[in-house]
Amino acid sequence: MAVYTKVSDTQLAHFLSAYDVGMPRTFKGIAEGVENSNFYLETDRDRFILTLYEKRVNAEELPFFLSLMQYLVEAGLPTAAPVADREGEALKALNGRPAALIQFVTGVSKDQPDEEDCAALGIMLARLHKATAGFDGKRENNLSVDGWKTLIERCAGRADECSDGLNAFINEEMAALDKEWPGGDDLPRGVIHADLFPDNVLFTGHDITGIIDFYFACTDFYAYDLAVCLNSWCFDAKRNFIPGHAKAMIKGYEATRGLSDVEKKSLPLLARGASLRFLLTRLYDWLNQEPNALVTVKDPLEYAEKSRFFRSDEFRNLLDD
Amino acid sequence: MAVYTKVSDTQLAHFLSAYDVGMPRTFKGIAEGVENSNFYLETDRDRFILTLYEKRVNAEELPFFLSLMQYLVEAGLPTAAPVADREGEALKALNGRPAALIQFVTGVSKDQPDEEDCAALGIMLARLHKATAGFDGKRENNLSVDGWKTLIERCAGRADECSDGLNAFINEEMAALDKEWPGGDDLPRGVIHADLFPDNVLFTGHDITGIIDFYFACTDFYAYDLAVCLNSWCFDAKRNFIPGHAKAMIKGYEATRGLSDVEKKSLPLLARGASLRFLLTRLYDWLNQEPNALVTVKDPLEYAEKSRFFRSDEFRNLLDD
Repeated sequence: MAVYTKVSDTQLAHFLSAYDVGMPRTFKGIAEGVENSNFYLETDRDRFILTLYEKRVNAEELPFFLSLMQYLVEAGLPTAAPVADREGEALKALNGRPAALIQFVTGVSKDQPDEEDCAALGIMLARLHKATAGFDGKRENNLSVDGWKTLIERCAGRADECSDGLNAFINEEMAALDKEWPGGDDLPRGVIHADLFPDNVLFTGHDITGIIDFYFACTDFYAYDLAVCLNSWCFDAKRNFIPGHAKAMIKGYEATRGLSDVEKKSLPLLARGASLRFLLTRLYDWLNQEPNALVTVKDPLEYAEKSRFFRSDEFRNLLDD
Repeated sequence: MAVYTKVSDTQLAHFLSAYDVGMPRTFKGIAEGVENSNFYLETDRDRFILTLYEKRVNAEELPFFLSLMQYLVEAGLPTAAPVADREGEALKALNGRPAALIQFVTGVSKDQPDEEDCAALGIMLARLHKATAGFDGKRENNLSVDGWKTLIERCAGRADECSDGLNAFINEEMAALDKEWPGGDDLPRGVIHADLFPDNVLFTGHDITGIIDFYFACTDFYAYDLAVCLNSWCFDAKRNFIPGHAKAMIKGYEATRGLSDVEKKSLPLLARGASLRFLLTRLYDWLNQEPNALVTVKDPLEYAEKSRFFRSDEFRNLLDD
């Protein structure tokens, strides 16, 4: 939620001289995205987001992300297209950082999505999965089982600094998931978003106008993407599960891309996996926060609570309805 | 350069329900302004900046700033108008902070203004002074002589932590300015901007499209406002004075509002005063910085160097040309 690298008007003018996008009219740093520097840019012709990729993004993976974004726009999805310069290059450099100019997408993200929003999200997620089936890029999910183990090693035993008993909970959950996690051929897979939280979905009313921030996209189970959304869209601010949200989302998804019985049966396990993934990355950030930084560190325990819910009969019964 | 207070789409919708401005289409936190939280807001009707005023702004002074902004727009200056709600109120509250919706102004601020930009700035500054002559609000400049003394007390003796000999320099300069500073009737005065750095002026090409950030505006000498601009527009990145910039700025100013001989003769002293003002606020921030905060603390010494320049014969001679 900050601009890490500044860009002066002179640097911007030099950067834009390689493109056919017109002259800058407005240029403002915006608080958005994972850990990149983002700028809102308006020229006399169009509107863009200029992104400078900071430390957390692996520069070698940027071509995968950018070509996926381009592919999805061509497939008719409401996503943001990277803009190529006159040489046809979308991935450039600015101020020593990899940088890309991305088309601007209108819309407002929802802090408290309702049932109708969840239905729209389910439909859009299925459309995304059907579209990526034709995309031939591949990227391993480095935040799946092996990635969780690495994170657990790094947080080694310090979890109880955050909350008593959290270390034991994580280790038990990791052992269970490691044992039961589906193999590569057990479930349909392809390129998924893998981080489709409400702040990455822009709406106008109940219509989705934009899906953004594809920088965790990877090859994994389609149903895991749905499991991520069950975690991030279907609980209220007090962390109570909202069955109507989950039902609407799954129904929307199934209307567009059918879920097999095996996929449905695996949802509780996949949802626990997604809970552990966000628990661990939040725990890592929590343990490594800079004391006075302006960045708000999110509560890891939220996902321990959600993980417990996904083991419940209440959730299994909902899926059987 | 950050968003201190978050605003959710639900909070925004509730806030906007008091206004006739249409439905939100885009809403993004932007990195701009002194220490306030600013958001770019686009509705189906128009574009705005939503500002939440944080700790450094005295809420009791906000009506002065907002009525000044409104007055200047009506006077035809390229400034941003506060937007009133249906009850006619421009100053509202959001998330526990005073808040105001301001019309959006297009333009890009210049990191390295050129001579033509400085000429435009001089003209615009004089237009601003002629316009505020008709505005009947008053606000003491709390960052003039008495304010500098307060800052010196707070930084008491710690200046040398920043640079050897800085404490002595500040005390000598303060003593000299205290003795020589003009009295209230010695020079023409009225409402000035008092912080018109390049980042507060938006351009399209060489045309000024916006003057923003009036939250230091106060009643003081018109020539002091020009002295602030000589400090902030007329040195290069290596802190070398650029005579052509200063000449163009003064010439532009004089073409619009004449400077008396007394005003001209007082410019070296007023410019030293402005140097001390920015030296002291930067020193205060430097001494009180949070070690890991994302905010970049600016170098106080830049203004010690500028102060020394304004005592030089080179600057006096330039004014005599």
